[in-house]
Amino acid sequence: MTRFASIAELHGACLDLPEGHAEKAAEVARREGALTKPPGSLGRLEEAVAWLGFWQGRCPPRLANVEIIVFAGNHGVTAQGVSAYPSAVTAQMVANFAAGGAAINQLAQAASAGLRVVALDLDHPTADFTLGPAMDESTFLEAVSSGYDALSPEADLVVLGEMGIGNTTAAAAIAASLFGGGGARFAGHGTGLDDHGLKRKREVIDRALARHGAVLGDPLRVAAALGGRELAALLGAALAARHLRIPVLLDGFVCTAAVAPLAKLRADALDHALAGHRSAEAGHLLLLEELGLHPLLDLGMRLGEGSGAAVAVLVLRAALACHTGMATFAEAQVSGKDA
Amino acid sequence: MTRFASIAELHGACLDLPEGHAEKAAEVARREGALTKPPGSLGRLEEAVAWLGFWQGRCPPRLANVEIIVFAGNHGVTAQGVSAYPSAVTAQMVANFAAGGAAINQLAQAASAGLRVVALDLDHPTADFTLGPAMDESTFLEAVSSGYDALSPEADLVVLGEMGIGNTTAAAAIAASLFGGGGARFAGHGTGLDDHGLKRKREVIDRALARHGAVLGDPLRVAAALGGRELAALLGAALAARHLRIPVLLDGFVCTAAVAPLAKLRADALDHALAGHRSAEAGHLLLLEELGLHPLLDLGMRLGEGSGAAVAVLVLRAALACHTGMATFAEAQVSGKDA
Repeated sequence: MTRFASIAELHGACLDLPEGHAEKAAEVARREGALTKPPGSLGRLEEAVAWLGFWQGRCPPRLANVEIIVFAGNHGVTAQGVSAYPSAVTAQMVANFAAGGAAINQLAQAASAGLRVVALDLDHPTADFTLGPAMDESTFLEAVSSGYDALSPEADLVVLGEMGIGNTTAAAAIAASLFGGGGARFAGHGTGLDDHGLKRKREVIDRALARHGAVLGDPLRVAAALGGRELAALLGAALAARHLRIPVLLDGFVCTAAVAPLAKLRADALDHALAGHRSAEAGHLLLLEELGLHPLLDLGMRLGEGSGAAVAVLVLRAALACHTGMATFAEAQVSGKDA
Repeated sequence: MTRFASIAELHGACLDLPEGHAEKAAEVARREGALTKPPGSLGRLEEAVAWLGFWQGRCPPRLANVEIIVFAGNHGVTAQGVSAYPSAVTAQMVANFAAGGAAINQLAQAASAGLRVVALDLDHPTADFTLGPAMDESTFLEAVSSGYDALSPEADLVVLGEMGIGNTTAAAAIAASLFGGGGARFAGHGTGLDDHGLKRKREVIDRALARHGAVLGDPLRVAAALGGRELAALLGAALAARHLRIPVLLDGFVCTAAVAPLAKLRADALDHALAGHRSAEAGHLLLLEELGLHPLLDLGMRLGEGSGAAVAVLVLRAALACHTGMATFAEAQVSGKDA
């Protein structure tokens, strides 16, 4: 079943977004101000708790049910030699996720988070978008719907990740379509492309932008023409989270590019999302800046799989532990400022 | 019992430093390279594991016994109106630590770390260093020795933190003594000083620098004249950790300033230390740059207590979980680069 029957219907759903719970955020802020520390001295930990409360509508917020969802897809554009690894690695890594051997398995466990992997028709890569659209409308809507339906309404926080050989090329093409600058601006070394390969990757993106010039003004058609199934699913999942008012942690470059069309359609569409980390993939910082997102972490990671965002879950857990466990000035009989 | 009988003896101990275990670091690097991810794609997580292995002499490294030590002291310079909080708060917060109500209690628990608080003669603040040395030689050596002896030889990692109303003034004075620039360069708002108070704090530091001009070339005498008991203890603890080859996570501005004299005495003296985070206290970034330290986190925290470094422990745990738990390419039958 495809939840969205047409791009027009999906477009409507992208514009119809609920706000968070301002009254709960105010309640969180009141408790925060009473805790035994100078106001604001926990910095982004305090902001993160306020943000969780605002979207969850809970005071205190809760992180009992944190869900990491990793979407996987294959890309026809790999025929152009844009990745250092063969396409077969996508399925091999999905098997590695299932066996518990990947980085995200260890990080999910460290973060006490559930991990779900959604492999999207790996045997049928999307079309090579230098030759035509990566996905036709129905393929695109099916992938978006898969992502939309992957979300558990019970989740307290959703962490979005991806796996797909070739997908930094798709991500760079989407970013360049939405924000300009061409392949030179957003293409990076991906999983380890050499300089010669990077030059080719940039040319591939520029050729694709030239071919799909007609749709570049339409963010959802950009996502269909230049994206991939896992990117479309990420867009669907982020949209579902917003409709359910579930806070979202975004992972790196591919994840951020995948949801960027939502922000192009409505500037506040990613207010329920926090950038978990800044990827070492060069285009990510530029993209974060375009979107006004300030990553929690900057650890030089560039693996995908939701790995950077999973580390950021640990920061949110630390923040929440302070908010819920600390004594107030009154409880601890500690003197306040200028007492 | 004072471990160091004279500043000359302590000086000698600061110059006599062991190296880490290069062969274990090489072993860690070999395993790292075989794991199912592009080489280097976990960025600073990989570096952190290598660093742990180098200093622990273990492959894989271990974080079974992580110890947070918070040293607390009081400062006579508070008579000059350099803090937004009264000195009584130091002891009140030590009581809050004991009762489990402070941020560091929650963060220690989140990081599965032990927490020890060492209160250093809180009823007898150090002397006001605008009038004379904060500590005479024996007071200083006693505090350094307390820190040195606080370390458990069994610790896999030590996290250093502090509490002491007025101690950002002492830290800024030490930093300015060692690296120049006066009060204007290193003084910040501390726990929440207003602009008028900040101006006063800068003047206080400049007066102290003028008074103690004769010792400014001698890092240990700077620590005695302008520091405080908890800063001296931090220096002692960092030195003990190096002698025991135990890796250290430094917390914020005060902690970094406290150990900076070690690096002035020997440029590689802090190679066993990682900066856990960059504090929002303005002088910290400048000080980190002077010391060539690259903080793991930048979360706008400025609380002290070891809080920022405790959050960084979570990152180290995540790093180690990847290193020990991930499958190799061979185990997972994943194709390598350019396969």
